[in-house]
Amino acid sequence: MPTLVLIRHGQSAWNLENRFTGWWDVNLTELGVQEAQEAGAAMAAAGLDFDLAFTSVQTRAIKTLNIALEAMGRLWLPVEKDWRLNERHYGGLTGLNKAETAALHGEEQVHVWRRSFDIPPPVSEAESAYDLSGDRRYAGIAVPNTESLKDTIARVLPYWEARIAPELRAGKRVVISAHGNSLRALVKHLSGISDADIASLEIPTGKPIVYQLDDALNEVEHYYLHERAAG
Amino acid sequence: MPTLVLIRHGQSAWNLENRFTGWWDVNLTELGVQEAQEAGAAMAAAGLDFDLAFTSVQTRAIKTLNIALEAMGRLWLPVEKDWRLNERHYGGLTGLNKAETAALHGEEQVHVWRRSFDIPPPVSEAESAYDLSGDRRYAGIAVPNTESLKDTIARVLPYWEARIAPELRAGKRVVISAHGNSLRALVKHLSGISDADIASLEIPTGKPIVYQLDDALNEVEHYYLHERAAG
Repeated sequence: MPTLVLIRHGQSAWNLENRFTGWWDVNLTELGVQEAQEAGAAMAAAGLDFDLAFTSVQTRAIKTLNIALEAMGRLWLPVEKDWRLNERHYGGLTGLNKAETAALHGEEQVHVWRRSFDIPPPVSEAESAYDLSGDRRYAGIAVPNTESLKDTIARVLPYWEARIAPELRAGKRVVISAHGNSLRALVKHLSGISDADIASLEIPTGKPIVYQLDDALNEVEHYYLHERAAG
Repeated sequence: MPTLVLIRHGQSAWNLENRFTGWWDVNLTELGVQEAQEAGAAMAAAGLDFDLAFTSVQTRAIKTLNIALEAMGRLWLPVEKDWRLNERHYGGLTGLNKAETAALHGEEQVHVWRRSFDIPPPVSEAESAYDLSGDRRYAGIAVPNTESLKDTIARVLPYWEARIAPELRAGKRVVISAHGNSLRALVKHLSGISDADIASLEIPTGKPIVYQLDDALNEVEHYYLHERAAG
C-alpha cells in the first residue's frame, strides 16, 4: 500500500511576524528548526521510512526536509526540488503584515484574498522590492505576479501526476515538504475536498500528515502523526 | 570555460578523534559546520556560482554541501548523491585510532595502509560493529570490505565520466562535496598526478578548490580559493 507523508515547513520568520510570504524566500525561525527536528524524530519513532523526497525551491521547505531527514538518519535519500511545490504567490500582498493589511483594506477583503478559492490578491508591481523575475532559480519560468488557490492547484497537480504519482505507483515511499497552499492542493486532490471547503482547511507547521493510499492513489486513510502517536 | 569546484567536507567527529572513518557515517563537528559556512561565504564573495551539485551518500559531505549552498543562497540547486563519491573504505581499520593502530602494527605499516596507492588495509570482519552490508542506503551495492586508493579511483572515475563530465561539457557549473580520497581520485585525473605522488597529496577540510577546465575537461589551472582571496 503506497505511503505518502506531507509536511508543511516549520515556522518561518514571516509566519512569526504575521506577514504574507508567498514566493519570498524567508528562512525558518529557531522554533521552525525545532519543529523540523521533532517531525523527523517522530517519523523515525513511528517506524516511517522513505525512498525519496520532494520539496519546493524555497529555503524554508528545503531546510525543513533536510533537518527532518537528518533526524531520521536519511539525509542520503534522493531529493527532487521543484518550483511547482512552492507556496501560493501572494502578489501585491507579499511582505505586508496581515493585521496592517486588514486595517487598510478591511477584514472582509483580506479574508476574501486569503480564503477564497479563485480570487487572487492584487498583482505585485514589477518594481516591487519582492519582484522575483530576475531570480536565477526561476530562469525559464513565467513567475506569476499573483495566484489564487485555484491557480496554485493548477501547477501543483500536473507536477504530482508527472513526478510524484508514478513513484508511488512503483511502490516508492514518498515524503513531501512544502507549503500551506501547495499542500492544500494535494490534500484537496487526495481527500476529495470541495472548492468551497479547501481554503479554510488549516495545515499546521511541522506536523507530518500520513496518507495510506490505494493502488489508484485514492485515500484509504490519513492522520496527523502527532495525534496518532499521542492516542 | 567549464568551472568545477571541489570541497572536502568540514571537520568530522572522527577527524577530531584521529580515527579511521572511511564509509562509517560520522557527523560534522561544530568546527566542521563553521568550515562549511565559511566555504559557502567565500565562494559567494568570490562571485562563484553553480548550476548543480554532487555529493556522496555520507552525512558529513551532504551537510557540508547543504550548509555551503545555504550560505550562498543556493539551497535550491539540484543535488545528486551517489555512493561512488564516498570516502575510501578503510576495511578493518575503520573506527580505530590512528596512533593506537601505529603502536600496534608499527608506524611503517600504518603509513603503507594510509599512503600506498594499491595496498588495501586488512578487510573488515562481517561481525564488525562497523559492518554496513545491512545499511539500506547501500541496497543493491556490493559494499567493499576494504579499498586501496586505486580501488577508490576505480569507482569514482566511471561516475565522473557518466554523470559529472557530461554536465560540465554542457556548460554547467558544478560543485562537488566529497572526501579526502574520492577527491584525490578526481584531482589525480584532472591534474595528471602520478600513482606515486597522489597518495601523499593532502586536501584540507572545507577549503574550496577551483578548477578552470578546457573543453576537453583538462585542467587549465586550479587554486585554493582561500589562497587566491588572500593573495
